[in-house]
Amino acid sequence: MIHIQVINPNTARAMTETIGRCARAAAAPTTRVTAVNPDMGPESIESHYDEALAVPGLLAEIGRAQADGYVIACFGDPGLDAARELATGPVIGTAEAAMHAATLLGRSFSVVTTLSRTTGRAWDLATRYGFAGACRTVHACDIPVLELDDPSSSAREVLADLCAYAVEHDGCDSIVLGCAGMASFREELTARLGVPVIDGVAVAVKLAESLVALDLRTSKRGEFARPGPKKYTGLLEDFGQRL
Amino acid sequence: MIHIQVINPNTARAMTETIGRCARAAAAPTTRVTAVNPDMGPESIESHYDEALAVPGLLAEIGRAQADGYVIACFGDPGLDAARELATGPVIGTAEAAMHAATLLGRSFSVVTTLSRTTGRAWDLATRYGFAGACRTVHACDIPVLELDDPSSSAREVLADLCAYAVEHDGCDSIVLGCAGMASFREELTARLGVPVIDGVAVAVKLAESLVALDLRTSKRGEFARPGPKKYTGLLEDFGQRL
Amino acid sequence: MIHIQVINPNTARAMTETIGRCARAAAAPTTRVTAVNPDMGPESIESHYDEALAVPGLLAEIGRAQADGYVIACFGDPGLDAARELATGPVIGTAEAAMHAATLLGRSFSVVTTLSRTTGRAWDLATRYGFAGACRTVHACDIPVLELDDPSSSAREVLADLCAYAVEHDGCDSIVLGCAGMASFREELTARLGVPVIDGVAVAVKLAESLVALDLRTSKRGEFARPGPKKYTGLLEDFGQRL
Amino acid sequence: MIHIQVINPNTARAMTETIGRCARAAAAPTTRVTAVNPDMGPESIESHYDEALAVPGLLAEIGRAQADGYVIACFGDPGLDAARELATGPVIGTAEAAMHAATLLGRSFSVVTTLSRTTGRAWDLATRYGFAGACRTVHACDIPVLELDDPSSSAREVLADLCAYAVEHDGCDSIVLGCAGMASFREELTARLGVPVIDGVAVAVKLAESLVALDLRTSKRGEFARPGPKKYTGLLEDFGQRL
Amino acid sequence: MIHIQVINPNTARAMTETIGRCARAAAAPTTRVTAVNPDMGPESIESHYDEALAVPGLLAEIGRAQADGYVIACFGDPGLDAARELATGPVIGTAEAAMHAATLLGRSFSVVTTLSRTTGRAWDLATRYGFAGACRTVHACDIPVLELDDPSSSAREVLADLCAYAVEHDGCDSIVLGCAGMASFREELTARLGVPVIDGVAVAVKLAESLVALDLRTSKRGEFARPGPKKYTGLLEDFGQRL
Amino acid sequence: MIHIQVINPNTARAMTETIGRCARAAAAPTTRVTAVNPDMGPESIESHYDEALAVPGLLAEIGRAQADGYVIACFGDPGLDAARELATGPVIGTAEAAMHAATLLGRSFSVVTTLSRTTGRAWDLATRYGFAGACRTVHACDIPVLELDDPSSSAREVLADLCAYAVEHDGCDSIVLGCAGMASFREELTARLGVPVIDGVAVAVKLAESLVALDLRTSKRGEFARPGPKKYTGLLEDFGQRL
Repeated sequence: MIHIQVINPNTARAMTETIGRCARAAAAPTTRVTAVNPDMGPESIESHYDEALAVPGLLAEIGRAQADGYVIACFGDPGLDAARELATGPVIGTAEAAMHAATLLGRSFSVVTTLSRTTGRAWDLATRYGFAGACRTVHACDIPVLELDDPSSSAREVLADLCAYAVEHDGCDSIVLGCAGMASFREELTARLGVPVIDGVAVAVKLAESLVALDLRTSKRGEFARPGPKKYTGLLEDFGQRL
Repeated sequence: MIHIQVINPNTARAMTETIGRCARAAAAPTTRVTAVNPDMGPESIESHYDEALAVPGLLAEIGRAQADGYVIACFGDPGLDAARELATGPVIGTAEAAMHAATLLGRSFSVVTTLSRTTGRAWDLATRYGFAGACRTVHACDIPVLELDDPSSSAREVLADLCAYAVEHDGCDSIVLGCAGMASFREELTARLGVPVIDGVAVAVKLAESLVALDLRTSKRGEFARPGPKKYTGLLEDFGQRL
Repeated sequence: MIHIQVINPNTARAMTETIGRCARAAAAPTTRVTAVNPDMGPESIESHYDEALAVPGLLAEIGRAQADGYVIACFGDPGLDAARELATGPVIGTAEAAMHAATLLGRSFSVVTTLSRTTGRAWDLATRYGFAGACRTVHACDIPVLELDDPSSSAREVLADLCAYAVEHDGCDSIVLGCAGMASFREELTARLGVPVIDGVAVAVKLAESLVALDLRTSKRGEFARPGPKKYTGLLEDFGQRL
Repeated sequence: MIHIQVINPNTARAMTETIGRCARAAAAPTTRVTAVNPDMGPESIESHYDEALAVPGLLAEIGRAQADGYVIACFGDPGLDAARELATGPVIGTAEAAMHAATLLGRSFSVVTTLSRTTGRAWDLATRYGFAGACRTVHACDIPVLELDDPSSSAREVLADLCAYAVEHDGCDSIVLGCAGMASFREELTARLGVPVIDGVAVAVKLAESLVALDLRTSKRGEFARPGPKKYTGLLEDFGQRL
Repeated sequence: MIHIQVINPNTARAMTETIGRCARAAAAPTTRVTAVNPDMGPESIESHYDEALAVPGLLAEIGRAQADGYVIACFGDPGLDAARELATGPVIGTAEAAMHAATLLGRSFSVVTTLSRTTGRAWDLATRYGFAGACRTVHACDIPVLELDDPSSSAREVLADLCAYAVEHDGCDSIVLGCAGMASFREELTARLGVPVIDGVAVAVKLAESLVALDLRTSKRGEFARPGPKKYTGLLEDFGQRL
Repeated sequence: MIHIQVINPNTARAMTETIGRCARAAAAPTTRVTAVNPDMGPESIESHYDEALAVPGLLAEIGRAQADGYVIACFGDPGLDAARELATGPVIGTAEAAMHAATLLGRSFSVVTTLSRTTGRAWDLATRYGFAGACRTVHACDIPVLELDDPSSSAREVLADLCAYAVEHDGCDSIVLGCAGMASFREELTARLGVPVIDGVAVAVKLAESLVALDLRTSKRGEFARPGPKKYTGLLEDFGQRL
């Protein structure tokens, strides 16, 4: 039985539970999915600052786990390189997974994300993964992450309208949901839009499962070799043991 | 139960069987894998000419199948765009799958392929998929495709030496096997090299399974809409019914 | 006397004749132009599927000819690499020629083509040839290829309006006609637009003439060496003799 | 009087002092330079893991300071985006500064850095800043960061030989020192090599001074607006006040 | 005391004086700035032709000067490579400086320049310097260079409106003024727009000062070695002495 | 009868004659080729400085001519943009022509040029024209331009050896001669190397002929509109009449 650990790098427990549900729905029956979040750091990730400060908690969770594969359940893919050094099994980011899936399906995709200030990060990731040419536009609905789940908000409609606009104007072959907290809207949006709508967390679970099943792991010969122990001080002292 | 059709686009039945075995080994127990090859076209694909002429047979197989997902089991990924128009489920190429897996594991990969004259095609594909920056080198062992399987040939050693050279000199994080006929060497090479060795057919099976499981299919709204019937003449007359 | 063979890769004889007329008008008096089309394959090329299935017929024509140079008279440049392997003289594609001419004249061009679903292919070609940065936009008029010629259709006006829009909004230095069947509109459009309007077939004839005159041919040392005979089966059996 | 805060993001106090000395030597007489390091995190930065865990301490120092401009004195430029959100004045990274200077002097540069496993990060930064085309090679001397300063080690000669090799083989117009701890070797290397040798910390001080003098600061309208307070928990609780 | 020579490559003396004033305002008190213009060539630079013909006069000024560093005060950065061969100290272009500063402040910038016909040149420079990805748009106000200074013209308002439009629609992190003659508008525009407005001449002065202070000069080993004497004839005979 | 003016932008009359001979050999019998050189500027072009100072003389020749098309017979393509503004017919550069021909023949080319210091310029041109990906290497033989013609020098052998090395090591599909003065070696090199050897002047003549024959000229609506008269002073006073 494959064990995939899904880590929501913010501390919002409710969001972790939603993410866990979606991840489990995506996983094979023979896969065990655990969904956790750190006990340190920001309750949502909406800036470079939040993202940077979510990484220590994320790495602590990876260090603590004994899983076969890992999913970083946040569209900014925080700490991905460091996590790959630390983990023995494959680590997959949410944006990474979504963009890979999108380019396996068609020529182009558009991202629909939360805050405008995070669109730059989405472009950075598309560029890093090789998909800048496939990414038509990154649209922001300017709804804070933690409001997505609030049934009294207009998040659902705003998001749906923005997705429809993107399909119409960008001519994209799919929509990539730009926040791990949007997973629960996927089905409804797919039905409405007529193009695939991609939730990166679900895809990341399948990709991690796939790599584990094929016994493919990040090479430990070079850049992603596990760092040895080192003197760390202050608040982060414990991290010197490389968890 | 998911049905994945693996199509070896050349007509070498023995190669189809090897590919089928590797594909089945990669698939989940709940997946049915069928491996076929066309009854028309070249017995191996070693030039742009062979590749172009393998496509009609490949498309005929896709048109005939009722599968949930498809794998094109040739490293040149022949006919991928046309196959995506024709199929209702996802279609994954071998080079495409291998390169996606490689970039999910680390920063870089090198390809080890058969004939020197095909290295340009491998670069074209790396570029198309967004991975030109991740591809360190494409090495050719200059062993014809159908000799790979011949136990009396030195193919195994030549290939292993070339892979070792690539790891040493390119500093690559993985090796991508540049021919669907190399799948049976994967395990042995992995053991020897200490970096992941990627067989694209196996990965393609997992990616097709994953997309099918998530109900993700190529959009039929734009570029990849299924073409309607059209007048075709001569040898290819039957293709006008869009199979 | 130089002999240039112009191959319309679809089977629409009327279109072949128009293309032949335009090609002959472009050629030097000392050049003999022959225009042919295959006797197999689709009557128009409007999808990746059509394009893939036009290639065998195209290659058969190239194999049969004894020309000094070749022009592939379709804006998708189908089978270009395979044709270069097969032919002894230079082979020039229509999109390739048009884009080369455009970049010799100015900084940028826009393409005006037939169906929206083919714009992706035009971008692929611009990228392959190195001209993605020079290509401002690919516009589609959504007129089927075989209607272009129909005097009762509004094709002429729709196309002219779209070209004018492109010049105005893209600030492009020229217009590239995105279909070999648009050649007969070139003069009228040039007069109206005030920027050069480029018909790739005419340019391709001149480029083929030029390379032949300078005795420049594709190298037969590497990627484009002529493939030797090989076992081909089924419908395409005859192609194994490499024509 | 302009105040530039130079932050060594590791906790090695001796290295901070060396960096401070070099920074002060570079600064104008009318500039006050303070050099600090965090009281939390790793004592050297030699992996993605170290880099990620150096960022909280770095951000704490930026939040605490009242400087006009900031320099991140580590070649990995850790936390640069987050620091730009937090700071009111300009923030300059070491790799960023060095690469900007190199491209203002000539066509190309080569980087000489410490550990092989960090060369990927150097390429990532060159790409991000727009200088991937100008960067010839990233060479690693494989000397740990904290040994650079050890007079009994062969660091000085190994580094000098590697720089000489780079100049000879890469044809680069300058050498970029790939570690803030190499600043003290700059003069000697310049004399030996005959091409400029660039210490990013010194350049970063001048660039920060320049932007401050011209009253140029990062826009606070969009991506780099200062994040408001947010609930943070656990070890990093205090960071929720955005320092 | 550092001596920076600022060369306005056109012959408009009034513009040279304005540029000199702005350059001196930017310089450190310990820097001596001299502003000159050639006694040959065009009175304004508004085409590739003007730019090409401004270069001999510019080079004559560089050959004549004994400065520590040089600024080419024209947004087309004419003659930059040749000037780097000729000069012993660093030479900085106006567009180059402005774009470097913009990318040190944020992710993106838009250029606001004079004539539409020069926008291509601005893109060429952004590409050359590595900043094509950071440049959102190049807008032209279509005001001739020599009218910028005319208090009776509407230049000021037209320019301000165009900058505001750029900030709003491009989402850029700064505005780069696309003409050395716009420097005097900088302060007013900054106040109005709320994002940094960058005058390349001022930045170039600081960059030249910085490189000189750090003793960084263009390498004379390769591409930018000073050319030896050579036979020149006709009008340009004197240039054979390499000034 | 088409009139093509070939302009050698240096003042070496013997070289102009050789270039004229090669150009005439390439031209159609119905084309009149005139070969000229300026009466001002450097006797050879071996630096950015030389190139910049060759441009006024080149533009004077273009202004004086009444030709249908123009060729700039120097591998640095000096003054190409300005010449396109000035001329009414097409203007083709030597590097431009050679690289276009190379990419019409195969995937890749290598350049063999004179001095090492000019290799950067060759790369700049390859990048500008869209062919950086097709250019394998730029090799320099370090023979001064004016020695190429000297029968007592070893130029011929050195060049041939370098070309052979390039074919062997770069795997290029053609060799581009990187100096207009190398045209007379083309035939011999072709015979020896077995891959096409491309002289840009000959190709440029054919391209200019082709564009003229098709009545394709640079658009005069935008960037390349002819500049109106303007005040020019000093040595270059006459250029204000735009020749």
